[in-house]
Amino acid sequence: MAEKVAIASDHAGYGLKTALIPVLERLGFEVLDLGTTGIESVDYPDFANALAAAFRAGNARRGVLICGTGIGISIAANRHPELRAALCHDGLTAELARRHNDANVLCLGARVIGPETARDCVETFFTTEFEGGRHAARVAKLSQPVCK
Amino acid sequence: MAEKVAIASDHAGYGLKTALIPVLERLGFEVLDLGTTGIESVDYPDFANALAAAFRAGNARRGVLICGTGIGISIAANRHPELRAALCHDGLTAELARRHNDANVLCLGARVIGPETARDCVETFFTTEFEGGRHAARVAKLSQPVCK
Repeated sequence: MAEKVAIASDHAGYGLKTALIPVLERLGFEVLDLGTTGIESVDYPDFANALAAAFRAGNARRGVLICGTGIGISIAANRHPELRAALCHDGLTAELARRHNDANVLCLGARVIGPETARDCVETFFTTEFEGGRHAARVAKLSQPVCK
Repeated sequence: MAEKVAIASDHAGYGLKTALIPVLERLGFEVLDLGTTGIESVDYPDFANALAAAFRAGNARRGVLICGTGIGISIAANRHPELRAALCHDGLTAELARRHNDANVLCLGARVIGPETARDCVETFFTTEFEGGRHAARVAKLSQPVCK
């Protein structure tokens, strides 16, 4: 059975989300599209929270989040201790997010990178393994909830 | 009295941190340097947590965090609901992080952007105002703790 990968975006990321779904499918994933469903204005934190809820429900363990710059949706995503959301802007940063940070969510900025760069990020992110080693202790520290 | 701006990095960001302190001073800030103090290997989450502690203690309300890609330290920073940490890679993203996300922490990747690009990010980030308006409700949603 194909692994499910969750994807969500705000209105600014809607077009890029639509373009990246076939990229994920070509990589062999079943895509769980959590919206948004059009270009009507919505709030990016709601879509990061929806992806976190899907992770907690066991419906996906990796995902993609998109807003205009990727900044807002990456802040919102990283409020959730079970997400390690990496804002990437090219193949190299997508590779390092996996190798060093064991990121499980790729964040992209639809207004600041082009669709082919985004495709490169997705293909790299979902085919690169975590290196472990000296990075593992740092990643473990990211999983400690800090809210009071 | 000059506003205090906090800055912290891991070993990969140590050189860039050293270079950016005078940039912040030229902007009129007193700089609160929270380490690291050299190129010996350290864990980036510890420095994001130190900056969050400085914010909570009232010692700073804006800051800069640096690691190799900026990814790990931005994940760690955004575990803290009082931080809105924006990973930026050029002046435009630094500008939008302030205008749209009211980011209070600028994250930079010392191994992926050059020192002059980093200087541009700092100068832009610390001189650009939040736009408010439609962005305010979204930013408010980022301040809701989600830990259980």
